Amino acid sequence: MTREQLVSEIRRKKSFLCIGLDTDITKIPQHLLNDEDPLFAFNKEIIDATHDLVVAYKPNTAFYEAHGVKGWISLEKTINYINEKYPEIFTIADAKRGDIGNTSKMYAKAFFEDLNFDSVTVAPYMGSDSVKPFLEFKNKWVILLGLTSNQGAFDFQFIKDDEGKELNQHVMEKASEWANEEQLMFVVGATKAEYLSQIRKTIPNHFLLVPGVGAQGGSLADVVKFGKNKDIGLLINSSRGIIYADNTENFAQVARAKATEIQQEMKSYI
Amino acid sequence: MTREQLVSEIRRKKSFLCIGLDTDITKIPQHLLNDEDPLFAFNKEIIDATHDLVVAYKPNTAFYEAHGVKGWISLEKTINYINEKYPEIFTIADAKRGDIGNTSKMYAKAFFEDLNFDSVTVAPYMGSDSVKPFLEFKNKWVILLGLTSNQGAFDFQFIKDDEGKELNQHVMEKASEWANEEQLMFVVGATKAEYLSQIRKTIPNHFLLVPGVGAQGGSLADVVKFGKNKDIGLLINSSRGIIYADNTENFAQVARAKATEIQQEMKSYI
Repeated sequence: MTREQLVSEIRRKKSFLCIGLDTDITKIPQHLLNDEDPLFAFNKEIIDATHDLVVAYKPNTAFYEAHGVKGWISLEKTINYINEKYPEIFTIADAKRGDIGNTSKMYAKAFFEDLNFDSVTVAPYMGSDSVKPFLEFKNKWVILLGLTSNQGAFDFQFIKDDEGKELNQHVMEKASEWANEEQLMFVVGATKAEYLSQIRKTIPNHFLLVPGVGAQGGSLADVVKFGKNKDIGLLINSSRGIIYADNTENFAQVARAKATEIQQEMKSYI
Repeated sequence: MTREQLVSEIRRKKSFLCIGLDTDITKIPQHLLNDEDPLFAFNKEIIDATHDLVVAYKPNTAFYEAHGVKGWISLEKTINYINEKYPEIFTIADAKRGDIGNTSKMYAKAFFEDLNFDSVTVAPYMGSDSVKPFLEFKNKWVILLGLTSNQGAFDFQFIKDDEGKELNQHVMEKASEWANEEQLMFVVGATKAEYLSQIRKTIPNHFLLVPGVGAQGGSLADVVKFGKNKDIGLLINSSRGIIYADNTENFAQVARAKATEIQQEMKSYI
């Protein structure tokens, strides 16, 4: 998907919501456990109930890998379902990969060719040659970890060099030399919304994928205030707050209600 | 596997060699492509031909994920084969994972429970809560990226704070507060062997997994000179230099010959 298509979908749907499909077998409604593929059955209902309210879905690969081959099949069915039924939706493999060049090329094949995701999250520690192989795929995106929403972000991401520049700033500055805003986004956690105005000085035009709204405590209003740009430039992810809002047979409609609340707030910001 | 068991295997086999199973369908011998599972068929022959010369195997997950479900099946068959036939061998899932706590827990389940690897490589960018869930598994190991062997290592890993301490030193110092040498190792590239004596001041006792000997140009003698400790403390990985040394029907025996050369040199260092 191109940036132009994504921005146009955001304006059409009046939403920049991404739902994270962190589908955990211990948290999904009991009745789905009788299905031959509970993870996919859950995802399918969530997707069908929310597709008109969101512009992106983000399956988190860990939750599928934990089930081995069966889990990978659920992941494959999920991405195929979205691509076939709702091709206008931007898809994110939240995989946080990154390795030396010839290996990153294999990860790019896995997520862009075999599974046909629009984008993949990538970890920056190994530098340019761990990121560039993903950028060789046309209309596919790298979403690089910039400033994450977890407590451990404070261990290394804020280390300052002798000029006071933090590691996360180094990562965003350097990476924006490798690709422009047509192919590169950054993960910036909503729990650190006050850093967004600083970050926007470095990368005014790139899209930011923002986790941490809701369950992790970040505020949507703050993220919009400090992070929005002329093309909106934000994808706000919510996972647990939407998909586990209810665990009865009615879960998908409750998820829809939760997503609607967020979308209605987003509408007021567009 | 415990550290004691690993050290004992190193002394018994007079080897600290790890073979990287970066099994690439475009590089394996032609005749294997007729097999119903070429990746596993290749790995099986390599493993049977080299198991007495090595103490570890390291499948690189990217090469399997690139084939989707089929690839994950090949990975599963490979780890099961090693665990059943050669349980004394230390196994490394070279997966470079790392995410917020509840997600890292899922990755830990994937590699320690579902696939039953002894260890997994982890990327440090997201800090403590991305690493700790892996450490909750008894006799399982985290191998954290310290200083990698690729060119991109220079992008961020050498950034110095205002006291001159580099990011890679921060990572190794901080992480060694999270776990001791019974459960934590570090990746340190052989292409930067001159840094090893400095690194040994920070982490004298931890094992180091050292890629980059051979194809990437590092010298075994230098790694031993600067990196060996009282328990050897090194696992030297070689992938391409061994597994792709030949691509005829004789490939496994040529791989054995290459592994023997390295093991013989290692023997002289033990």
